Amino acid sequence: MKIAVLGTAIVGKTLAEKLSALGHDVMIGTRDPAASRARTAPDTFGGPPLSAFLTEHPRVALGTLAEAARHGELVINATSGAGAVEAIQQAGPANLEGKVLIDISNPLDFSRGMPPSLTVCNDDSLGEQVQRAAPGAKVVKTLNTVNAYLMVAPGILAGGDHTMFVCGDDAAAKATVTGLLREWFGWRDVIDLGGISMSRGTEMYLPLWARLYGALQNPMFTIKVVR
Amino acid sequence: MKIAVLGTAIVGKTLAEKLSALGHDVMIGTRDPAASRARTAPDTFGGPPLSAFLTEHPRVALGTLAEAARHGELVINATSGAGAVEAIQQAGPANLEGKVLIDISNPLDFSRGMPPSLTVCNDDSLGEQVQRAAPGAKVVKTLNTVNAYLMVAPGILAGGDHTMFVCGDDAAAKATVTGLLREWFGWRDVIDLGGISMSRGTEMYLPLWARLYGALQNPMFTIKVVR
Repeated sequence: MKIAVLGTAIVGKTLAEKLSALGHDVMIGTRDPAASRARTAPDTFGGPPLSAFLTEHPRVALGTLAEAARHGELVINATSGAGAVEAIQQAGPANLEGKVLIDISNPLDFSRGMPPSLTVCNDDSLGEQVQRAAPGAKVVKTLNTVNAYLMVAPGILAGGDHTMFVCGDDAAAKATVTGLLREWFGWRDVIDLGGISMSRGTEMYLPLWARLYGALQNPMFTIKVVR
Repeated sequence: MKIAVLGTAIVGKTLAEKLSALGHDVMIGTRDPAASRARTAPDTFGGPPLSAFLTEHPRVALGTLAEAARHGELVINATSGAGAVEAIQQAGPANLEGKVLIDISNPLDFSRGMPPSLTVCNDDSLGEQVQRAAPGAKVVKTLNTVNAYLMVAPGILAGGDHTMFVCGDDAAAKATVTGLLREWFGWRDVIDLGGISMSRGTEMYLPLWARLYGALQNPMFTIKVVR
């Protein structure tokens, strides 16, 4: 499948690597491809710079946000929360028309230190903002409750005995994404919360996630909905 | 132990019943005891009115919020979120001075229907407001992430294989409460998140809880932190 991954940070690279390894035709989209390629410093989490990543993964292409959005039959928004809406605008609503758009972004605000607060919550969400920025796309919010490594390999923690959530206004798109989460990554317990406004619930879990990260001193955790 | 339970709704009654059954000397506190006794309609969840509850549990006393706060060596705030701060003010900061105050309240706003939004979040929390309303009390936020039946009997779900959180500014009070959660109710996995401001995390989980309730159509669930 032709897949676009918007964003070059740890989430974008981890997804691009996994999806390319599964045989998909992946293009990463970024605001300024030349500038992204020119960076030589490690990324925020100490990972290799994008140029090294692209050398190691020659089948992964790099383009602008709009080029990637045009390339993808399915588009994944893995940009940072602060830039997510602008990234979707640059990707171009017309390029996203009718496509499934998986939104992983979280509205985290680190400007006042750790733990982060949210830039939007309670009566709106980033998932809804992304849907409004690309009204013709079928936005499905998911994967935003775990770190990048768990997104693509839930089985590395407790054999995958934990829970993922999906929400979105298009039932068929949610069913597609739920199937892909199982097939691509091995997610076994996926709960459909309802429409895209349910993003408020999974995004407002992030303040608890951040505090658990502080208490456990390790990001390799998540929640299982016990019922 | 002499224990005060502030609040006459399902959480207050369930805690009072359990703690009385364990042999504790429990007084429920309410704004207007005479009015509470006079009510004959079932409570919001279809449970018996308070008068019937008190007849069935003759060892549980009823008093004003201030009388209960004076009675309790340990005080539990089980009032509704909308009235929690006012209830603490009526209980009287002087009556709470130096005491452990377990805060279970959640800042839920049902005025716009289900799922509820929060009346405070992100840069403040009800736990912090309760602590500010009773600055001499040792507030420990806990139990607010599960329904009343699970609070007092976590073992009825998956043998108790799920997680509870505590936070508060007084380390000794948190250790006391953690011990009581284990001893009284059987909570096995209790994570200390840090100071009382960490209430923002557990209270902001409630929007996800409410959406899970909607999706699962059953309140008998909670989360296990898998790590």
